[in-house]
Amino acid sequence: MTEPEVSRVESPYHAHDVVVGAGVLQELGERLSQLSRSRRAALISDAGVASTLLPRLEASLAQAGIEACSRTVPSGETHKTLAMAGELLDWLALHRFERQHPIVALGGGVTGDCVGFVAATYLRGVPLVHCPTTLLAMADSSIGGKVAVNLARGKNLVGAIHQPLLVVSDLDALATLPDRDLRCGFAECVIHCVLGDASGFDWMEQAAPRLLAREQGALQQLVMSNVRIKAGIVAVDEREAGRRMILNLGHTFGHAIEAALGYQHYRHGEAVALGLLAAGSLANARGMLASSQLDRIRSLLTRLGLPTVSEVLPSNAVLLELMRSDKKVAGGVIRLVLPEGIGAAVVASDVSEGDTARAWDTLRA
Amino acid sequence: MTEPEVSRVESPYHAHDVVVGAGVLQELGERLSQLSRSRRAALISDAGVASTLLPRLEASLAQAGIEACSRTVPSGETHKTLAMAGELLDWLALHRFERQHPIVALGGGVTGDCVGFVAATYLRGVPLVHCPTTLLAMADSSIGGKVAVNLARGKNLVGAIHQPLLVVSDLDALATLPDRDLRCGFAECVIHCVLGDASGFDWMEQAAPRLLAREQGALQQLVMSNVRIKAGIVAVDEREAGRRMILNLGHTFGHAIEAALGYQHYRHGEAVALGLLAAGSLANARGMLASSQLDRIRSLLTRLGLPTVSEVLPSNAVLLELMRSDKKVAGGVIRLVLPEGIGAAVVASDVSEGDTARAWDTLRA
Repeated sequence: MTEPEVSRVESPYHAHDVVVGAGVLQELGERLSQLSRSRRAALISDAGVASTLLPRLEASLAQAGIEACSRTVPSGETHKTLAMAGELLDWLALHRFERQHPIVALGGGVTGDCVGFVAATYLRGVPLVHCPTTLLAMADSSIGGKVAVNLARGKNLVGAIHQPLLVVSDLDALATLPDRDLRCGFAECVIHCVLGDASGFDWMEQAAPRLLAREQGALQQLVMSNVRIKAGIVAVDEREAGRRMILNLGHTFGHAIEAALGYQHYRHGEAVALGLLAAGSLANARGMLASSQLDRIRSLLTRLGLPTVSEVLPSNAVLLELMRSDKKVAGGVIRLVLPEGIGAAVVASDVSEGDTARAWDTLRA
Repeated sequence: MTEPEVSRVESPYHAHDVVVGAGVLQELGERLSQLSRSRRAALISDAGVASTLLPRLEASLAQAGIEACSRTVPSGETHKTLAMAGELLDWLALHRFERQHPIVALGGGVTGDCVGFVAATYLRGVPLVHCPTTLLAMADSSIGGKVAVNLARGKNLVGAIHQPLLVVSDLDALATLPDRDLRCGFAECVIHCVLGDASGFDWMEQAAPRLLAREQGALQQLVMSNVRIKAGIVAVDEREAGRRMILNLGHTFGHAIEAALGYQHYRHGEAVALGLLAAGSLANARGMLASSQLDRIRSLLTRLGLPTVSEVLPSNAVLLELMRSDKKVAGGVIRLVLPEGIGAAVVASDVSEGDTARAWDTLRA
């Protein structure tokens, strides 16, 4: 049994705690009571985890004397829409939630993003508590304040920066997480290490067997170290004016893959794992990343069960066109994050379409 | 011909200019060039003013070498919805607007609020330029950063705080403004004076004939002084933690009137004029506002063509129930802003429903 650990996330506007441990969902009511005088809270849960985890949350709030009003949202990226956000907003208004009442998001990254957007805009912003239930959400999407929904033309095109009041990551939720979802979380962790934590990368190489076996101690260490990497970057650049952009390592490529395949074939984590390798190949071609380092990245991804080549990629013309419609485009110039060895990354605005096309080709092995 | 005047609005995050004068829409391209290197802008115009004013804006941007992509939104509060915001967001994505491209909102308060919400959330926030075309929007809604759309359960329930890059108020737009819209603008100005500018109130009493005759010099002075009153309050409390709440003088009553009548019978300005008198009567009953001061307020509203009694108010039970669902409710307690003489206001959390009902009754004369 692992003891819960608490990391403090600093933000220009709202510092908050991130609690990581086994069974910590059961402490939510007590922790919330220390942070808010509100005696009401809205619980919005991913339908996929509602039967197992929502009752624990409800019991914890009830024990702390907080009246909870709960509902579910359907699982999956296709429901992360403005229409779903509108449904949740109408529901909050119907139940007369007020400015001081926290909204608790229980689920993976999709739920956290959509419910987070709702919390950011309802009454111009109400308190938000993230209870991530996937590794990806614990190690990545619940940290940093980015919330969003998708438009038909692209992912996360509508959103806000809205820092949570609290993040509670219960490792028990990972015990029943499907293998594929676990691997997707590993992908984001590898990306974090490549862009900002060389020793974390070494550790992941050693800990891979324990991570795959879901040892709680290893998972806790993984989540905590990823929270620190990401929070450290966000603290100096919440609105992505500069430094925060490096967190997009692998994502400009990855988003293009997802969009090209209609968000069907690969999960987000798998697509960004491929994207990391494309960015790595590009960096390697520029002399920024040694071939041995690129091999280490590829090998770690393989051991963690992630794809490193693809047989379903569309043509470079299609992929390049999709990259041009990414949010990070400025003045039509595609800015790409490239690894500089393992443990650092830079933003490059001078990558030619030819170089980008060659990077895509390395995934077609 | 009046010379344009510029007022600087301070905000915790984004100080910006407010330009008020005749013909200033024609300077927009040049001013925008000084603030942004972007060579593209989205123009979203209220359909009601598009035929007269949109071409001026397009010409001004073209002259400054800024490529404009424009479209209209239908007029009226019923279109200030999440669905309309979604349509505009899809349109921006379709035209590949990027983070640095400004969105220009041309129209009254409804357009500014809805387009402002779109600018606040598209790509997590893009630059916004307000070009208000009604007195209400120039003197009130374009200042302070509040943007929002309505839900079926109430007005402005979904929104953000998003300060503009620039506000350009062209007094020429007021020349053709329908009388009723002009009066609605006067109502917000009277409210601003009652809550924060005693000498402004005196001036409005003297200037009423010139204001009703739409003398540009008088209108310019009115807009500039109201911008300063509102901006001064917002500068110390952008997120309405305290002081900013006094700007809601008359609005909790006014919103209940609007909601009770399905936003049909009264315009917003007319409803808040009635609301100001209800709040004044309540303050008078508490000994905070002399009867002579209440008479001066009523008399000024009458001279400006605004309603001071109503024959269509629903029952107090209906109105009180609607007040309970207002955004400013905290812990079920209705907080009301009450004038303290002319030129100051306070927030009261201890107003009984009986006192509130009696205030409603004074409007039924």
